[in-house]
Amino acid sequence: MGFFSKDIKTLDDLFVHTLRDIYYAEKQILKNLPTMVSQATDQQLKQGLEAHHRETETHITRLEQVFKMHGVAAKAVDCPAIDGILKEASDLTGEVADKQVLDAGIIAAAQAVEHYEITRYGSLVAWAKMLGRADCAQVLQQTLDEEKATDRKLTTLAEMGVNRKAA
Amino acid sequence: MGFFSKDIKTLDDLFVHTLRDIYYAEKQILKNLPTMVSQATDQQLKQGLEAHHRETETHITRLEQVFKMHGVAAKAVDCPAIDGILKEASDLTGEVADKQVLDAGIIAAAQAVEHYEITRYGSLVAWAKMLGRADCAQVLQQTLDEEKATDRKLTTLAEMGVNRKAA
Repeated sequence: MGFFSKDIKTLDDLFVHTLRDIYYAEKQILKNLPTMVSQATDQQLKQGLEAHHRETETHITRLEQVFKMHGVAAKAVDCPAIDGILKEASDLTGEVADKQVLDAGIIAAAQAVEHYEITRYGSLVAWAKMLGRADCAQVLQQTLDEEKATDRKLTTLAEMGVNRKAA
Repeated sequence: MGFFSKDIKTLDDLFVHTLRDIYYAEKQILKNLPTMVSQATDQQLKQGLEAHHRETETHITRLEQVFKMHGVAAKAVDCPAIDGILKEASDLTGEVADKQVLDAGIIAAAQAVEHYEITRYGSLVAWAKMLGRADCAQVLQQTLDEEKATDRKLTTLAEMGVNRKAA
């Protein structure tokens, strides 16, 4: 979509645009997760991030399924939000000297990623229903539920010990 | 903080760094909200964003209070995440031709902002408690509760009619 051409004319256009935005975001997240895994020290955090890497592959496949169901090309559009969130994560982890503090920082960075996904999938589910695409909404809801579960798991990991070790 | 100097050595450093990150973010949000208000058509959305503008001023004051309580300078550090989220919001609204669809897009953009704040304040509250700063945690929790309430209000606005008008 061109930035000055007002290409989004309908809610359907906005839905497709946002699908392409999160499609780009998921791919960037997939690329960045291995670095987070390698930087993490806490074993449960490492395993949690590895599990989320596998989940992210599924989320990408599900998006491709939704593109197909909706009859549009599976294309990615630039997503400055996720680029910024991941840049901040990488800047931050580069600044942390202590391994335990780094784990606390990685959890916070991963939760910023999760919250971005939660908000985007939340909008997508609502718009899919409004567009009469209950089938697409159902597929997107599965991913939304998994993103929320990952966010809760990260909170639990932080509360269970990562923050205490860092303090 | 310098990007290559590993300036974050303790959880306290991470806490202060993140306070400065969200301090920058809140100021950028304050600057961007009037544009969102002027672009919105739905009266309830307009009023909701105006109310959030006043709330954001309070959030900035609260952060300055926390800096003071914690005995550190109220400084802002660059926050590429909020820059990216706000750039995406501005790119998107520039691409939407229809006013009702624009309202749906503004709600989604505002919710992306809220979720970023929710995740950062969530980490800050947890870290403040771990650092024995229940006083700071309590002030930050007030803002966290307000950000969550704003996110819920935006969902209600979308469900109550904005998405339907856009469809």
